[in-house]
Amino acid sequence: MTTRSRASRPDVEGCLTALLKLLGVNGLYTKREDLARYETGARYGVGQAAFVMRPASTQDVSLALRTCFDHNVAVLAQGANTGLVGASTPDASGHQAVLSFERMASGIQLNAINRSVGVSAGLSLSTLNTVLENAGLWFPIDLGADPTIGGMIATNTGGTRFIRYGDVRRNVLGLEVVLYDGTILNLMDQVRKNNTGFDAKQLFIGTSGQFGIVTRAVLEVQPLPKNTATALMVPTSSAGALDILVRLEDRFGPQLTSFEGISETALAVVFGEVPQLRNPFLTEPLPPYALLIEVSSWNSGGTGGDIEDDLARELERAFEDGMIENAFTQDPVNLWSIRHHISDSLKRRGKVIALDVSVPRDRFIQFREEACERVLRQADFVMIVDFGHLGDGGVHFNMIWPHDVPYDVELVEELRTTVYDLVASHGGSFSAEHGIGPFNAHFYKRYVPAAKQKIEHLLGQALACLEKDKS
Amino acid sequence: MTTRSRASRPDVEGCLTALLKLLGVNGLYTKREDLARYETGARYGVGQAAFVMRPASTQDVSLALRTCFDHNVAVLAQGANTGLVGASTPDASGHQAVLSFERMASGIQLNAINRSVGVSAGLSLSTLNTVLENAGLWFPIDLGADPTIGGMIATNTGGTRFIRYGDVRRNVLGLEVVLYDGTILNLMDQVRKNNTGFDAKQLFIGTSGQFGIVTRAVLEVQPLPKNTATALMVPTSSAGALDILVRLEDRFGPQLTSFEGISETALAVVFGEVPQLRNPFLTEPLPPYALLIEVSSWNSGGTGGDIEDDLARELERAFEDGMIENAFTQDPVNLWSIRHHISDSLKRRGKVIALDVSVPRDRFIQFREEACERVLRQADFVMIVDFGHLGDGGVHFNMIWPHDVPYDVELVEELRTTVYDLVASHGGSFSAEHGIGPFNAHFYKRYVPAAKQKIEHLLGQALACLEKDKS
Repeated sequence: MTTRSRASRPDVEGCLTALLKLLGVNGLYTKREDLARYETGARYGVGQAAFVMRPASTQDVSLALRTCFDHNVAVLAQGANTGLVGASTPDASGHQAVLSFERMASGIQLNAINRSVGVSAGLSLSTLNTVLENAGLWFPIDLGADPTIGGMIATNTGGTRFIRYGDVRRNVLGLEVVLYDGTILNLMDQVRKNNTGFDAKQLFIGTSGQFGIVTRAVLEVQPLPKNTATALMVPTSSAGALDILVRLEDRFGPQLTSFEGISETALAVVFGEVPQLRNPFLTEPLPPYALLIEVSSWNSGGTGGDIEDDLARELERAFEDGMIENAFTQDPVNLWSIRHHISDSLKRRGKVIALDVSVPRDRFIQFREEACERVLRQADFVMIVDFGHLGDGGVHFNMIWPHDVPYDVELVEELRTTVYDLVASHGGSFSAEHGIGPFNAHFYKRYVPAAKQKIEHLLGQALACLEKDKS
Repeated sequence: MTTRSRASRPDVEGCLTALLKLLGVNGLYTKREDLARYETGARYGVGQAAFVMRPASTQDVSLALRTCFDHNVAVLAQGANTGLVGASTPDASGHQAVLSFERMASGIQLNAINRSVGVSAGLSLSTLNTVLENAGLWFPIDLGADPTIGGMIATNTGGTRFIRYGDVRRNVLGLEVVLYDGTILNLMDQVRKNNTGFDAKQLFIGTSGQFGIVTRAVLEVQPLPKNTATALMVPTSSAGALDILVRLEDRFGPQLTSFEGISETALAVVFGEVPQLRNPFLTEPLPPYALLIEVSSWNSGGTGGDIEDDLARELERAFEDGMIENAFTQDPVNLWSIRHHISDSLKRRGKVIALDVSVPRDRFIQFREEACERVLRQADFVMIVDFGHLGDGGVHFNMIWPHDVPYDVELVEELRTTVYDLVASHGGSFSAEHGIGPFNAHFYKRYVPAAKQKIEHLLGQALACLEKDKS
């Protein structure tokens, strides 16, 4: 999430005096030792905070933002701090105030008939899904990390079931937002259809807190599948992976709930670094590329429509047609565990340069082959570990810089540019899921159409105008 | 779609002289007899056009809009003109120029592997789906009318399969838009994930041309179901309809592709006015409320997972549990034809006051009962014919004013306000699908939160600023 404030010098002292009255000692941390855990990201990012605000209500958030606005202190919202782009940790200046949502995690309001749930922004995804499970429902965004709902909205996360359920944007019905001048915007729709002019909530989804901070949300939730079947498959050729995708979509429609790709290097690292995982390939060599897929059924009765049998039949057909050469369906928990452990296992091999990009699906295989080739031509000591979402065109393209090679910031920048240029040439996006933060902000200017940048700038100005009503 | 222009007086003469050079005689209609068919809506709305522009390309649209902008002539975009709220016909002033998309209907670019298609805004929904069908795909927005894609985007239409596929917004990947100053905005993404700041295309979806006119789009398309099963069911009580909805969603998940409600009066009118329809109730009295549902399967093989059998089993369970008292599954084409003929059949009974509203699903039954009671208390001669989308909370609440009662504009306004007030009290929206147009614009001020109105106003100003770079 990013920051926003007036142009003149910040008055941190005055701001703290005012905030202490409004938020109390429990709502405001100022001691160095108390700030530390808000200054380092769960995975990436580190900085220094001026102080930390811990509001307990929307009203608190409004007062906090208004006070910071008046004293020209920049504010950075922080959820679970699990992002990739350094957007939820303060910068090194020591001038940014962190607004933590850790005290705004209660108050789940389930409307089962409407299939919707009202939540506070600080609620964690895992807590929400634990509550929903009792009603046979879930919020189906599936991630390796456990972010807050507010952070998920600010970054518009996708995850491994995007192919069926889409991104967060697709699952948000309503929002409550506080603008930086303290204005509370109530857009807490429970309805699915509200076409009364511009859909204002879209301004605050995927914009990393640029225009305001999400405090509450109404989410659409989905019926939990009764059964799922999983397969780790080896296509006979990488390019053939796309044919398998098209065939399974045609056969399963919305019952195809995941279609992921994992490279050989990703398998090698995860099996090497996470000993509790079982390697289904045993002593066989790892394949150049593997597919992890899931199909789901909502049928609890044993009436012949068993999803495991359906998948087995399709795998058999794919074998017969020469599309796949190997497939594993046993122990789906282990198969998914392999997928979800990749990201964290990488850092044990070196410094991870984590790019999260997307391309049209038909370009997926070609893109990753070209990207590997170009990067290795520039830096043959780098280890490329890519994996991602074939079903939606998202690629986690990671370059691991070995610990024993001196880190070269300029070369890293060149490598990022090489990959992003290639993404752009395929009509893709240099930021698929994690939004814009300090790590990738300078690429925004390079790749985003000028007219869109201008609209975004004007939007920022327009929203700042709302303050004019206030004294 | 609405209009936009500068504050000073329009120069129609000068505008026509300039346009003739740019668009040619085939691109510009000025004779009264040529204008007539652009001045009357397919269902609602009538007015008078200053002239009609018929661009053949995005470049034409840009030149046309820029020229009208410079001569201060308001422009109204027109697709198939099938809306409910008078937004695609010119007003009575004779000062508005119509921009017709009838010459921009070609150029379908299918990317089957990406499951996406590039289209021009003037393409009709039916033409698109005919082309897609050959590839086993479809654009799954199902409507009684046959609008253009541009009109569907401008109004963010929903339709009878919203419960599974959502609205148009959910299915748009990219847009090309021309702003009223002629600026062409290329946001023609083919990717599903592009989180590089604000999602600018959202500005132009469901905003009735307020900020700019859509000229092309990239749509996500879906695998066609192989089999569907349909049932017209009579719940033992209206309120029980919601229990049936929840149960079928739990059982079928995304295979439940439609869940519609039809009132007794709607059945009576459609059977009375459309003789080719077969009434499955035969000589039995019509039920107070009926449900029309569809479940879909993507399985073409006869492997025991037959969707008709699955539905039959669920209907049996619902009978046993006392949830339904009657169900028809024969001749699904006739059942759907009943549903799709309701809207057009109404006008034969009187003047139709067509309201398109939505409420949270749990309020659906309560809302319709209260609304009927309140309207009839104010005007007992009005016939209420409601039907709609229980699955997504959308209600087509129609009041038919009999031909033999003198039309009372003020009372009609009171009745609309009665219904909309009730909608608002249930947390609903007074405009579910058809957007804002002359027929409902004054309600925008009454029901839309002031802060949202203000943002919308500022947005309009911000987008008008883009022109400052020109001339």
